[in-house]
Formats: sequence, C-alpha cells, structure tokens
Amino acid sequence: MSDRATKDLLCELLRLFYDRGWVSGTGGGICGPTDDGTMFLAPTGVHKERVTPEDFFVVDPADCSVVVPAADATLRPSECNAIFSACWRARGARSVMHSHALSSVLAADLAGDGDNISIAGLEMLKGIRGVANRDTHLVPVIRNTPREGELVDQVDKALADDRFAAAFCILVADHGAYIWGDDMWEAKRHTEVYHFLFEAAVARRR
Amino acid sequence: MSDRATKDLLCELLRLFYDRGWVSGTGGGICGPTDDGTMFLAPTGVHKERVTPEDFFVVDPADCSVVVPAADATLRPSECNAIFSACWRARGARSVMHSHALSSVLAADLAGDGDNISIAGLEMLKGIRGVANRDTHLVPVIRNTPREGELVDQVDKALADDRFAAAFCILVADHGAYIWGDDMWEAKRHTEVYHFLFEAAVARRR
Amino acid sequence: MSDRATKDLLCELLRLFYDRGWVSGTGGGICGPTDDGTMFLAPTGVHKERVTPEDFFVVDPADCSVVVPAADATLRPSECNAIFSACWRARGARSVMHSHALSSVLAADLAGDGDNISIAGLEMLKGIRGVANRDTHLVPVIRNTPREGELVDQVDKALADDRFAAAFCILVADHGAYIWGDDMWEAKRHTEVYHFLFEAAVARRR
Amino acid sequence: MSDRATKDLLCELLRLFYDRGWVSGTGGGICGPTDDGTMFLAPTGVHKERVTPEDFFVVDPADCSVVVPAADATLRPSECNAIFSACWRARGARSVMHSHALSSVLAADLAGDGDNISIAGLEMLKGIRGVANRDTHLVPVIRNTPREGELVDQVDKALADDRFAAAFCILVADHGAYIWGDDMWEAKRHTEVYHFLFEAAVARRR
Repeated sequence: MSDRATKDLLCELLRLFYDRGWVSGTGGGICGPTDDGTMFLAPTGVHKERVTPEDFFVVDPADCSVVVPAADATLRPSECNAIFSACWRARGARSVMHSHALSSVLAADLAGDGDNISIAGLEMLKGIRGVANRDTHLVPVIRNTPREGELVDQVDKALADDRFAAAFCILVADHGAYIWGDDMWEAKRHTEVYHFLFEAAVARRR
Repeated sequence: MSDRATKDLLCELLRLFYDRGWVSGTGGGICGPTDDGTMFLAPTGVHKERVTPEDFFVVDPADCSVVVPAADATLRPSECNAIFSACWRARGARSVMHSHALSSVLAADLAGDGDNISIAGLEMLKGIRGVANRDTHLVPVIRNTPREGELVDQVDKALADDRFAAAFCILVADHGAYIWGDDMWEAKRHTEVYHFLFEAAVARRR
Repeated sequence: MSDRATKDLLCELLRLFYDRGWVSGTGGGICGPTDDGTMFLAPTGVHKERVTPEDFFVVDPADCSVVVPAADATLRPSECNAIFSACWRARGARSVMHSHALSSVLAADLAGDGDNISIAGLEMLKGIRGVANRDTHLVPVIRNTPREGELVDQVDKALADDRFAAAFCILVADHGAYIWGDDMWEAKRHTEVYHFLFEAAVARRR
Repeated sequence: MSDRATKDLLCELLRLFYDRGWVSGTGGGICGPTDDGTMFLAPTGVHKERVTPEDFFVVDPADCSVVVPAADATLRPSECNAIFSACWRARGARSVMHSHALSSVLAADLAGDGDNISIAGLEMLKGIRGVANRDTHLVPVIRNTPREGELVDQVDKALADDRFAAAFCILVADHGAYIWGDDMWEAKRHTEVYHFLFEAAVARRR
C-alpha cells in the first residue's frame, strides 16, 4: 500500500470511528505504517474526523522521535506517541487506535479495583486473532494518569504480562482503550470487535 | 433480477446492516439466488460493508459445493455455507443473512437453558410472513459450537421442529441469528423485523 | 407547494424516519396534501425508505376512496387510510405519519391498563403547537386490534375526547403511534418532538 | 474566517448536532462571530438542520438588538438571543450552542433540588479548556422558566458564581444545555465533550 493510500485510509477510519462516537471532542488517535518502516501519527487536539493526509507526522517508533513533521507547523504529534510506539515494539502492532468510547469507560469500570476484565461466552471473540469463542479472554485495565505519556510504564507492564498475551487491547480506567493489529485492516477489525465486547459486557452485567 | 443486480443488492444490504451494527468486525454474512437456481455466497473474514460483486462465490445448496469461486483467489467462502444451504433446502429460503447484532445475543440470553424465546404482544410480528399480531411467536435458540459449521445438526433439528414452523429465524446463544426469506426483499424485511423484536423483548424484560 | 414537491418531501421524510428506526421492516406510513384538497397516501407492505413519488395513491379523506391509484398496479394503499382520514376530518391534519418506533411501544406500555400517558416537566412540550412547557400533556393510548382498519372506532373516540384536545398524537399499545400536523413541516416537527417525549418518559421511569 | 465561511460552518454544525439528536423538533440554536465584532444568530422555530446562510440575523450582543435581519422577513431571531449575549459578554464566548439533547435533560435530573452536578474521574474532562482529568468539575443547573428569555437572570448568576468559573456549560432542568467556546471550533469540541460527560454521568448513576 502506498504512503498516500495509507494516510487516506487512516483519515477514513477516523471518520468512521467518529461517526460511532469513539473519537469525539477531539479525543482519540490513530497510527499506521509508512513504507519504510516508520509510523504515521495523527496530530493532537484536532477534530479527528477532519484530519487530512497532510496532517500526519512521521515518527520513529524505536525512540518516538519525529522524523517528518506535519505540513502545518502549528500541529503537534499525538500524546499517544509513546504508547503507540510501545505497542509497535512489543507486539509488532503496525496500526493502533486510541478510543474515547463511553463503552470502553463503562467496561473498564467493571474491573473495580482489579487489573483486568474477563470476557467469555461470545462468538465475537473469534474476531480477535488467535482467540476462540470458548476462551476466557482477559483484557488488562490500567489506571489513568494526569498526562497520557505517563501511562507508558503501566502499558509496558501490561504488554509484558503473560496473562494478557492474547489481548490486542489495553483499557485505561476512566479514559478509554488502546486497540491494535498487525496492519490497519486488522486494527479496524479488532476495534469493532472490542467495542462490541465492551457493549456486551456492560449490557450483560445489568 | 439479473445476477449483477442481485450481487449489487447483496452488497447494499451488507452496507445497510453494517451501519446498523449487525455485521461489524467482519462478522455476519449473506446469500442470495442466482438466475439458474444456485446461491451467491459472501466470503468469510472480510469487512462485510466492503464486499464487492466480484467477491461472491456461487454455491450449489444441494451439497454446499463451490461451483464458481470468487474472482480473488485468496478469498474463502463464508462458514455460513452449510447453514444457509440447510435453510434453502428445508424452507425454500433463497436469501439468508447472518447477524452478529448485540440485540440478538441479548435476546438469546432470555432463553436461559431453554431452547426458544417466545415473542407476543407486538404489531411488528405482522412483518413476518404468515404471523398475526396476536400470535405467540416461538424463535428457536440453539447452543453455540466452536466452529460455525458444527451448528448444522442443531439447525436441521430446529428447521424440522413443528413448534418453529412459523419462524424465519434461528438464534444462536452467545453468537447471533440466522434470518431468511423467500427472496432478498423478504429477507431484508424479516431482518429488520426480527431485530426490532429482539430489542423490544430485551427492553421489556428490564 | 407543487404536488411533485409534496411527494418528494414525503419520500424524504420516510427516508429520514427510516434512518431513525421509526418505519423499519416495511412498517409505518405517511400522507400529505394534494393541491386540490385530497390526500397523497403511501402504499402498504413496501420498504418505506424506498418509496418514490410514483408510488403514492390519491385518496379522498371524506370517504377514504382511492381517486387515483399508484402507477404500479401491484401496489395497494396503506391500511393507515382510514385513520389518516379520520385525523384529517376531525383535526384538519393535512399530514399524518404512522410510527413503529420501539420508543412509542415502550411509552404506551407506561399506560398499563389506563387509556393515556401524561407527560410533564419538559421544555420539548413547547414543540407541540399550543402546548406550554408547564402543561401536563395527555396522550391517548388505545388498544391494538388484529387489523389496522379496526382501530378507527377507538381513534374516533380519542379524537373526540376533550381530555386529548391538545394532543397531536395517538399511541397504540404494542404497536406504535399516529402523529400529525397542519402541514408536512408541522407533522415532521411533531414527529420529532413526540419521539423525544417517548424516550424521555421511558428513561425517567427507569 | 470570512462571514460566509462562518455562516456555512454554523449550518454544518447544526446538521451535525441534528444527526446526533441534539437539536431535533426545531429545538436548540447556535451563534457565531461576525467579522466586525457582532453575532450571527440562527432563527427560532425552524428545522435547525435546514438553516441556510441567508437565515441568520446579525445581533449586537451588547444589547441583544438586531442589527441586520434575516433575508426572509417571516423569520424571527432565536429566543436564545439574551442568553447567548450574556455568555458572550461575561465569558467572551464568541460561539454558543443550545442543546435539547435527552442526555442533557437526564444529566440535569441528577442535580435533584441542587443547583449543580459534579463530574469527576473522566479523561474527557480534559476536552474542556483549563480542566484536568483529576478535577471535580461543577456544572450549574438552573430551573426552567415558561419563556426562554426569562432564564437570563439565573444565567447571569451562574456565570458570576465562582464555583462555576471553570464551566463552559449551563444545564437547564427539564430543558437542555447552553455550551460555549472562544470560537466555533472550541464550541464544537465543548459540545461533544459535555454531551459525552452527560451520557457518562447518567450511565454510571444507573
């Protein structure tokens, strides 16, 4: 896929996620792969459904450094940078989305003081690569921090925790979720699947 | 209706069902009739709202064999094949859709350990061919299996069960629903009607 | 407004109401005024979001007789005919819509065995012509019947009941609602207002 | 931004808010800045998603007087005029929207007899300028009045109340919300953020 097509698809996914209410109020974010092994990263603080291909930063996920800035010099790279890069390095995630969906907040509430929620008894689990519909799927839940960058330590621990080896998602209490895939299409599928699982878990708890 | 128009309509219905949240995360499926008495079947594992007319398989519902593969050799026919074919043979269903709607999962939950849910007291029941608004309508609920193809035995039994003779729908616990009609337009109508009934049954139970 | 513009707007309103889930599964209906004092009536049993200007019947609301049939001879006029005509005669309603919204069914449930629901404490009441936001607004609830035409006696009684003189809506238990206005724009406004009131009444009862 | 672009964006925002269900039934309203320091104000009593650039009034927020009427002489300026102008003067709000969302009504219900709701424990709070995700954010709730203009005294008090200095929103019980920003883009962001907060507060209370 060309870099241009990659950026077009990232913009399309942001519009799709916005229509679902997952990146409203300028919240949320997304990244995808460049042709030469670095990362396209959306800017922070902008209305996500209105991001254009020129608005992306090129970031080196090895150290989160900005290789190429966005065309508009007033834009700044998403605070998701460090977390997206952590998922990239630890899991080979070439595309990550950050959700501010209400369903992700309510699903994280189900963890109470615990560090995870478990999801079971749903065919939709099959939509996660490597997961079967009879598995009990653990999704890590980390605590929110004043600044998004400060989540990285907890993210690193969750990514390294064997209990969560099957997860392509980290929930952040009171905040949202990070969801990823090997490529943008898998990230899209996982995004839709996990949001379904969040809604189902919340509805069944009632 | 020409084969081309049939495939165009199947694609349109998939987009419509996706917008409703009924086939998200690459889940769900659809089939419709070819001009010569076989079946167009959507592929598995793809984003259903992006299926194109070239992506359909032609299947013989008599034995589920693929008569003509999709243009793209990497595509595989939907695992719904055996179930769609069973509905085709037992009920003359020329179009079947497979839903992954949350409302279908929550409606199946209402069955508990039972093998059906009963729906009554709703004008919308009239939207099902042959059903009156004062009927008590039984919808079979079968148990989920590790693989979709393994549902066929239970599907065959539900289709042969006199209690469910009026149903154009089979619910699969923890999974979703199969909904059909004599043609694509009836399948669309039944799909909308049954999802309304699922939502109403769940809302009234609260 | 020309007859053509009237029919175009009726089709647009049906698409709008379909997107809201108020006329799904071929349910629901609509009418509007012709230039010469008769009524355009949508057909029955069709997917309402796909109705075209050629599909309307011209009906004389004085006696419900069909003056001009739809272009397609296989179409039949909506069973709403008698009820729309009753609202036209009793209230001067030149446009009536029939909703199958789940919120209308759940709102009618609130009546229990009673013959009305009362709505109060909502600014949105002002959206109903002649109603103030501090009024207690009574909406009649009638019992469903096997056939839609059989509702007419109850509709006539509700329209003649002084308690319901301020209402532009009749709820039918287990079924839906009829909502009208002096013209199509008022009918659209009342339709949106009453559906908001249904949702609010149900949400506040929980 | 040119006056024409401002009016185009105001129309686009009204369509967006209508699709979200926040300005249905002709309810709600919006204003934005003219180039010369006055205010574009939408008309009252019209279907808000259909407002065109020609429909705006130019108002002087210093005294709420109409400087330039709408092109259509039958239009009247929104009753929001006095409240929008109060926010403009007290807070420098160059764009204000008035919501009739059900979530705003249900959120105001949470205040009971109190004069505010407090929102805490949500990352989305950061979407409000100057607010941190660990803040407890107080949103004033005022009582509804028979006419919208009569709300001004309570609005003035809420705007002057130090407890609410961080708020860009005033809830009106049984009615809706006023939400503002320094410019139209901030008003859009705040609108999306506060509606998320309303929905979250209501969902967590259940």
